[in-house]
Amino acid sequence: MKNIAILGSTGSIGKQTLEVVDSLKPEYKVIALTANRNYEKLADQVGRYSPQLVVLSDHKSASSIASLIGNAECRIESGAQGQIMAATWPEADLIVLALVGFSGFEPLVAALRAGKTVALANKESLVVGGEILAREGLLGKKLILPVDSEHSAIKQSWTALSKKEILRIYLTASGGPFFGMKQKELEKISPEQALAHPNWKMGAKITIDSATMMNKGLEVMEARWLFGLELEQIEVVVHRQSIVHSMVEYIDGSIIAQLGVPDMRTPIQFALTYPERKKSQVEAFSPYGATLSFEKPDLDNFPCLKLARQAALLGGTMPAVLNAANEIAVNLFLKKELSFNGIALMIEDVMNKHQHLKSPELNDIVEADHWARMTALDIGKQFGGKD
Amino acid sequence: MKNIAILGSTGSIGKQTLEVVDSLKPEYKVIALTANRNYEKLADQVGRYSPQLVVLSDHKSASSIASLIGNAECRIESGAQGQIMAATWPEADLIVLALVGFSGFEPLVAALRAGKTVALANKESLVVGGEILAREGLLGKKLILPVDSEHSAIKQSWTALSKKEILRIYLTASGGPFFGMKQKELEKISPEQALAHPNWKMGAKITIDSATMMNKGLEVMEARWLFGLELEQIEVVVHRQSIVHSMVEYIDGSIIAQLGVPDMRTPIQFALTYPERKKSQVEAFSPYGATLSFEKPDLDNFPCLKLARQAALLGGTMPAVLNAANEIAVNLFLKKELSFNGIALMIEDVMNKHQHLKSPELNDIVEADHWARMTALDIGKQFGGKD
Repeated sequence: MKNIAILGSTGSIGKQTLEVVDSLKPEYKVIALTANRNYEKLADQVGRYSPQLVVLSDHKSASSIASLIGNAECRIESGAQGQIMAATWPEADLIVLALVGFSGFEPLVAALRAGKTVALANKESLVVGGEILAREGLLGKKLILPVDSEHSAIKQSWTALSKKEILRIYLTASGGPFFGMKQKELEKISPEQALAHPNWKMGAKITIDSATMMNKGLEVMEARWLFGLELEQIEVVVHRQSIVHSMVEYIDGSIIAQLGVPDMRTPIQFALTYPERKKSQVEAFSPYGATLSFEKPDLDNFPCLKLARQAALLGGTMPAVLNAANEIAVNLFLKKELSFNGIALMIEDVMNKHQHLKSPELNDIVEADHWARMTALDIGKQFGGKD
Repeated sequence: MKNIAILGSTGSIGKQTLEVVDSLKPEYKVIALTANRNYEKLADQVGRYSPQLVVLSDHKSASSIASLIGNAECRIESGAQGQIMAATWPEADLIVLALVGFSGFEPLVAALRAGKTVALANKESLVVGGEILAREGLLGKKLILPVDSEHSAIKQSWTALSKKEILRIYLTASGGPFFGMKQKELEKISPEQALAHPNWKMGAKITIDSATMMNKGLEVMEARWLFGLELEQIEVVVHRQSIVHSMVEYIDGSIIAQLGVPDMRTPIQFALTYPERKKSQVEAFSPYGATLSFEKPDLDNFPCLKLARQAALLGGTMPAVLNAANEIAVNLFLKKELSFNGIALMIEDVMNKHQHLKSPELNDIVEADHWARMTALDIGKQFGGKD
């Protein structure tokens, strides 16, 4: 029996995690669930999984769920402290961290410090906080199981006895819906077009990040901390079919790759059942008739990937600034207040304005994040955004 | 330091093994070398590697090498007993078994019984003798490291904790130089055309087997015994580019594959350095710009693969009969005494004539092998062969 706490259970990854748990029953039990404000959805999940703990981000939502679930024997908490309680819940064997944004950082730190195994679907905590986690010795590979399809593929393809056997890794990128387009055509892209990802069904933010290729830039940073690699060891290769989810190249010339249909339930289940594999509901990939192609990413027309590498190279507060500026830019784009090309321009501008700190503490990072959001909103006006 | 005995050191795999040893020095030492009759080549190798033991298949060649190597401090043996001596040489840590044909069986049995780790490049000992090896409990996966590129790829992609996690494996096949041709065109194929393999540089026998796809049929049988799989779990997929060397599909929908340029030094080195990986001289595969395609094999125009599956399903003496008839047929084809399509026709005819034994002892298999060769030579006349 494995007891699972899901932080962010009403989001896309959270819901798919519950689907996987359903298919793995009865060996897996949901023991804690947390959400932001969607108390109705969370109440529904409480009815189905009877967790010991539920957490919502504010008091009001917590009171609302209390009246909804009535006499269910379930502790109700709220706020950041509640998320941390879920992340360290004594009976939990595995913490699925599917919170969105840097709010996932503190629960991650708490879970790792409590010795929990974490299935990590929260990019930002590594992108923004990876350097701090590494400095504090919290990045033992055994404790963090990646839920991103690319990083799960790397984990699955990583058969090295020691890191010196690894030459490099290739993160595959679908290239998003606009791969092959030039900047001039990209200028007119609408949010609706950008939200239509060719291969993956995901949340809005990550779908836009995928269209700009910022997602791959964030994944380069994520991979760096997860696997303890140098940035130069992490390549990005465009693979339109999204079948090869990533590859590990060894010093002997062998490449090991993980393939499968694009379905987030595969990396989720791998993290849940690790180190075992169990039967899944995911459709098999049949190679017969398949053609798999691999191309160089187009950094000129999709500059976000280049910006992310620059931020990663600089390190310190810069990844937080890139990430925060990107969140604001994507939001403005979704509200039609910023053009598609404006996303990268705005991020670059914020990065240029930033007074970079080389070895920040957590509060420096939180401050840089805040500064970047304010600056981005401010700059947003020039690029066509409103207050 | 790893001490290596190479059985069949003057053949294609043997020579490439020495190349790999050269690149891995000084941690690897050649301790025994054996050949069939090529005493000049072997004498040259003795000069370069100073083994403790050399073996040739007959007294005459053994005497010839004795006079060539003079006062080298090296024991010289001959015959089958000599091969077994090399396969069980006390100071050898790893036996590279690159003998051609069923003559590799007894050295394999001897090596395994002596607890040696074997790097196995001799298909026939598994194809023909796999059932006996399995019955005698000699097929512990840990002891046999496959040197075939496909089986090495399976080994490298096999990350399962237990066999029940494996759904199936895909052996990739280049399809040979004639993939896509119909029987009518195949009729006119000359040995010269068949010897020009598009991707791999190999010996003559295996190159023809690759053109008829019999090689893949033999590999299905090999995989069955090496990995303890059911025949239905072993699929063959044509992959013209020979970059993906084989794949393992797990019950959770994930496929793990090994990729690389087609170069036998990769599986050889993997067997030599296992479980570690070391830097190699093999060129890396760059995915940028690559297109990898996968197709169904054409069993109608390349019936050898179908015949091999039939023989495998029947088991007992039938794989030995298939293998022996194939050896004769390929020989006749190379001498232009049998047409390309005649190879499969002749094998099928010999199989049909065979009085199949279900649970044979070793002598039954040796007898079936002998019978099949005689019958094939006899039948060969009808198909256009001579005495």
